[in-house]
Amino acid sequence: MTASLDRAVAVRLDAEDPLAPYRREFVDTSTAVYLDGNSLGRLPQRTVARLEHVLRDEWGDGLIRSWDRWLDMPRRVGDRLAPVLGARAGEVVVHDSTSVNLYQLVHAAVTLAGDRRVIAVDRYDFPSDRFVVEGVASVRGCTVTHDIERLDEVGVVVRSLVDYRTGAVADLAAETARARAAGAIVVWDLSHAAGVLEVRLHDDGVDFAVGCTYKFLNGGPGAPAFSYVRDDLISSLDQPLRGWFGQRDQFAMDDGWEPHGGIERLLVGTPSILALAAAEEGIALTAAAGIDRIAAKARRLTGYAIDLCDAWGLVTCTPRDAARRGGHVSVVHPDARRLVAALVERHGVVPDYRDHDIVRLGLSPLTTSFVDVYDGLAALASEVRR
Amino acid sequence: MTASLDRAVAVRLDAEDPLAPYRREFVDTSTAVYLDGNSLGRLPQRTVARLEHVLRDEWGDGLIRSWDRWLDMPRRVGDRLAPVLGARAGEVVVHDSTSVNLYQLVHAAVTLAGDRRVIAVDRYDFPSDRFVVEGVASVRGCTVTHDIERLDEVGVVVRSLVDYRTGAVADLAAETARARAAGAIVVWDLSHAAGVLEVRLHDDGVDFAVGCTYKFLNGGPGAPAFSYVRDDLISSLDQPLRGWFGQRDQFAMDDGWEPHGGIERLLVGTPSILALAAAEEGIALTAAAGIDRIAAKARRLTGYAIDLCDAWGLVTCTPRDAARRGGHVSVVHPDARRLVAALVERHGVVPDYRDHDIVRLGLSPLTTSFVDVYDGLAALASEVRR
Repeated sequence: MTASLDRAVAVRLDAEDPLAPYRREFVDTSTAVYLDGNSLGRLPQRTVARLEHVLRDEWGDGLIRSWDRWLDMPRRVGDRLAPVLGARAGEVVVHDSTSVNLYQLVHAAVTLAGDRRVIAVDRYDFPSDRFVVEGVASVRGCTVTHDIERLDEVGVVVRSLVDYRTGAVADLAAETARARAAGAIVVWDLSHAAGVLEVRLHDDGVDFAVGCTYKFLNGGPGAPAFSYVRDDLISSLDQPLRGWFGQRDQFAMDDGWEPHGGIERLLVGTPSILALAAAEEGIALTAAAGIDRIAAKARRLTGYAIDLCDAWGLVTCTPRDAARRGGHVSVVHPDARRLVAALVERHGVVPDYRDHDIVRLGLSPLTTSFVDVYDGLAALASEVRR
Repeated sequence: MTASLDRAVAVRLDAEDPLAPYRREFVDTSTAVYLDGNSLGRLPQRTVARLEHVLRDEWGDGLIRSWDRWLDMPRRVGDRLAPVLGARAGEVVVHDSTSVNLYQLVHAAVTLAGDRRVIAVDRYDFPSDRFVVEGVASVRGCTVTHDIERLDEVGVVVRSLVDYRTGAVADLAAETARARAAGAIVVWDLSHAAGVLEVRLHDDGVDFAVGCTYKFLNGGPGAPAFSYVRDDLISSLDQPLRGWFGQRDQFAMDDGWEPHGGIERLLVGTPSILALAAAEEGIALTAAAGIDRIAAKARRLTGYAIDLCDAWGLVTCTPRDAARRGGHVSVVHPDARRLVAALVERHGVVPDYRDHDIVRLGLSPLTTSFVDVYDGLAALASEVRR
């Protein structure tokens, strides 16, 4: 379908959008056409108030006594995030970073995989994930393959649900089942999926997953990541990053390591409370809006963007099947780097550049309007024509 | 020496204290006699203003563009911390947590230690450190010994500079040299030393060290930790927690792992900017006050506390030699748990309890007054007499 190039269509789509009021929950959504919410989500108003409270009342006034309410935050925030991921309470914990969490879960998966000492990761998967795989392989004596199709000798597969370049979505249930049938365990990275796609981790049989909260979940720059472990796997999960927050009785100072009985066994050192509080606010906002409505708007936003690309003659590598794409649309152009710089400097439009030919447009349903999509792509089309 | 029990002495000591004005740099230092700054340091005023700026201006308004100024924060904050630790620029980086950082450096030390496959850690060292050692040992096939004296077959020693229970300080230079002479490498945990003791990591020949910034450095609850690696060891340092922030060219998306040339090779995933900004403010305040003056006041505060213990008949296990103790004084009493609860509830005095017979009084030179010491110990003495 070729979209109408009349901007009034975008205005009408916004007027009909049930999530449009959520834009007012964020700070200052007017100054830029921000199409990079999949790199760093916007700042929720409630996060400003929450941080003020955590700083002045909890840290400043409560001091050490506030640990009474802070100690269980990684789990509490995880439980708030769980329904957004189709996970059960107790299957998700928010802590550390995506890379650290992935390191833990790949270790755990390698242990479960026993004699199958090959880890598979796509050559074009997100670099940090590939580096983590290499790191685990180096200490566990595993080999790494970049072939994620033939799993004959593979014990562990590391895979992103949404491709950070194209926006293509893998089939979570089918790929998990295919790996299992071949004797392998998948550790999924949901960084570009969490908060924008409706996933069902538990019901789809997913064993392990990680992901970040600073993209579509609007948790703040470098916000702590999450780990998901299906409930029946938790009590036998073993991983080497042992710290006092993962211990069964954290304040039994004289004892040896005994892991916590729950998902908390993934915790390591003392978590940043400022970072967790900010993450909690972004996650709570997503949970309140409903991941079903958010995912529906993501399909409409990305569909509209693809239609406009067609109308303006822009080439996109993002799947046209709405069920097969995430929350961003990527335009391919040999001058991508120059185009992104021009959009920022001349148009107040902020997309992302991905090496070496991708202009990536992140469409974050709680903060991106249809008019944003229109104005962003109109600016891009005009720059391409220059 | 037995101290005068006249409170006017404490008032006079405060009047003569060159660091007394720094109390005004912190939020609300009047509501409690806070003697737990070695568990969680107080909130600096400047941290409130900084977080407001980071939230509204950098995240809210600057959005993804602010990564231009955020990317090098772990190293920049490390360089601000370096003089406080007697380290050189480029030897310190602030990131992750003490436990994660210790995991990395113990791994690196095990690799350097070659055939010597024993890791030594004191049975009574801080639990999280012992757990980390067990975790590394489990994946590297090392054995763990709790004998830190006989180092015949030991490759790596993990050791706290200040004992978290007694406040006793190890001899940094001598123990490092003794281990080296025996063929072992020490990884020091400076959590209870950083920001209160004058240490000289580089000049004392220390190879590796970690520590937290939320105690005497006032970096906030769960603030990111630091890693120190002596400059000549950095370029060969190998550790398995590989993430895109530790990569030589972070945005070269298609390449394999190649570690950063500098101390940044210890970075893993995306760091929390909110947490780093708060840590930077606490560190900057310490650097501005001068670690020499801070350490001198720590000796006076702890000496005054020990004198008052003697005068009131309280038993302390903290060394009487000022050069051999850190920034806290521990009172030993079989009813320690009850005493701590009574101090909080009846006196507005906040010390810390450490299993199973220690009332720990953290004396943080930038925020603790001599009157605080007097009032806290007077309350403790009165509770002991009840």
